Amino acid sequence: MSSELALKLELVRILSEHDEIPISEVVREIGVQQDELINMINELSRYYLMETARSRVSWSPGDNPRRLKPWGWNYLYRIITGSTMTSAKQMPPWSIVVSEMQTQGRGRHGKTWIGNLGGLWITFKINTAPQVAQVLPIAIPVLLVRMLRDKLGINVEIKWPNDIIFGDKKIAGILLEGEYKESVMVSYIGIGINVNNDPPLEVAESIKNIVGHLIPRNRILSYLSGWISRLDRLVSKPDELRMEYMEHLSTLGRKVIAMTSSGEIQGIAKDVTEYGELIIENESGSHRLSSGEILRLRHAE
Amino acid sequence: MSSELALKLELVRILSEHDEIPISEVVREIGVQQDELINMINELSRYYLMETARSRVSWSPGDNPRRLKPWGWNYLYRIITGSTMTSAKQMPPWSIVVSEMQTQGRGRHGKTWIGNLGGLWITFKINTAPQVAQVLPIAIPVLLVRMLRDKLGINVEIKWPNDIIFGDKKIAGILLEGEYKESVMVSYIGIGINVNNDPPLEVAESIKNIVGHLIPRNRILSYLSGWISRLDRLVSKPDELRMEYMEHLSTLGRKVIAMTSSGEIQGIAKDVTEYGELIIENESGSHRLSSGEILRLRHAE
Repeated sequence: MSSELALKLELVRILSEHDEIPISEVVREIGVQQDELINMINELSRYYLMETARSRVSWSPGDNPRRLKPWGWNYLYRIITGSTMTSAKQMPPWSIVVSEMQTQGRGRHGKTWIGNLGGLWITFKINTAPQVAQVLPIAIPVLLVRMLRDKLGINVEIKWPNDIIFGDKKIAGILLEGEYKESVMVSYIGIGINVNNDPPLEVAESIKNIVGHLIPRNRILSYLSGWISRLDRLVSKPDELRMEYMEHLSTLGRKVIAMTSSGEIQGIAKDVTEYGELIIENESGSHRLSSGEILRLRHAE
Repeated sequence: MSSELALKLELVRILSEHDEIPISEVVREIGVQQDELINMINELSRYYLMETARSRVSWSPGDNPRRLKPWGWNYLYRIITGSTMTSAKQMPPWSIVVSEMQTQGRGRHGKTWIGNLGGLWITFKINTAPQVAQVLPIAIPVLLVRMLRDKLGINVEIKWPNDIIFGDKKIAGILLEGEYKESVMVSYIGIGINVNNDPPLEVAESIKNIVGHLIPRNRILSYLSGWISRLDRLVSKPDELRMEYMEHLSTLGRKVIAMTSSGEIQGIAKDVTEYGELIIENESGSHRLSSGEILRLRHAE
């Protein structure tokens, strides 16, 4: 029933505003009786590091994004949004928008990205030099690969251009957008990570299900906001960055089928340029295609 | 889609916090683009006195319950609750709980009462002398009849025990509960009024649809909270109150079918006692039944 989701989100909101709160106070705020409330919290604890004990309920500050104060950033935390990308449009540069649920999350080429409870749905809005903005398609997937390996011990691969996959399942996605404003480049880095959510699609998986327990999400947020505030350092050696990207690129050397607006191209994925374009080779020659040109890419085998 | 309702409620929350707000600020908070946001506001303006003009959106303070400061009362306004009755349990006496949406609103005998956008879903929690509590089943329907007549020009009737009907459609309902606490009587007066909502049931109608325009709901809230804080005055002449109740009682003199836990009773509704019990007469005699005993009452013709 649709209103049940709305009530559950209201409960998330109330709990996000406290590290710990008496259950009786939550009963008053949410208007459901104690036994049912405890059922609701138990359900939420599949997605959040929440606990009830001695008439109180707590949400780990390491998992509650409202508790995060990312240094040097404007920070907007919302329980539900259409899309963090849209919210970020109205924020100044150096802003982070985080939402517990996205109803109209966007993927590449207008595809929808479903953002449900327990995941991380984030937009970083930053000012960049044009030469930094150009390497974001390489740098951001590498950053996610490093984070997953170093912080969570998960070895993932990249599906070109910038899906993060484990086996053949998607665990994170990236959406990059940019605009010039008074000759300054503004970049929007949209990142969706299936952390503790249960992804609604067969082709996706969450970190929770890979490692077998819930992950405190603020560790991920801190890692990413820390590195994205020092992007210059991340991209200071573009050749090495590109090498690292290639090392993890599952797409490389495989037969791929690329849908473009002017038709389908099949061939072997041979290389990626320093700006992230894919080189596909087939009998008709070598094709250099940007992520803007390829609407959909499939690994053929 | 279920998440769309949750997003709509989030928009109601944001707008409730301001009399007037720039649309660009709402775009940031809600994360949907301006044209779509304006569509959402247009949809909400079927239920709320909201307007967009000159890049701003406003919600009439006369309709936005967050703007109400009922004198002498504790006041809890929530966008969504399970039930205002349950919220009120954790509030001190002399509290009002108002919610824009109730997912688990209760009617008499555990029936659910669906509380959707634009209605008024209220619980008044008060201390009463036992003799005042006893006449609430008479006093509260009379108060609603007066309010609807004097403030909104609508002549309604009462369906025993305390449904307020227009023609044969329900426009308001009452749920009375009470408890003793340290020898003090605490009464919960639950009132649901179909003001500007579109009731989901065929057998219900809203005031909006009767008068042809939206009603600023705070006028209703002020009227009710004012009179309920002076209940002693309302019930000072119990005989006259009962007369007024009887005058508007559509059930009186009609053939009724009453479902009780021990079976069905048919007969003519002859009278109501000063405590609100219904007298039904049939060939087997005269039956005096409280609202606690009658699970469901139907007007047979």
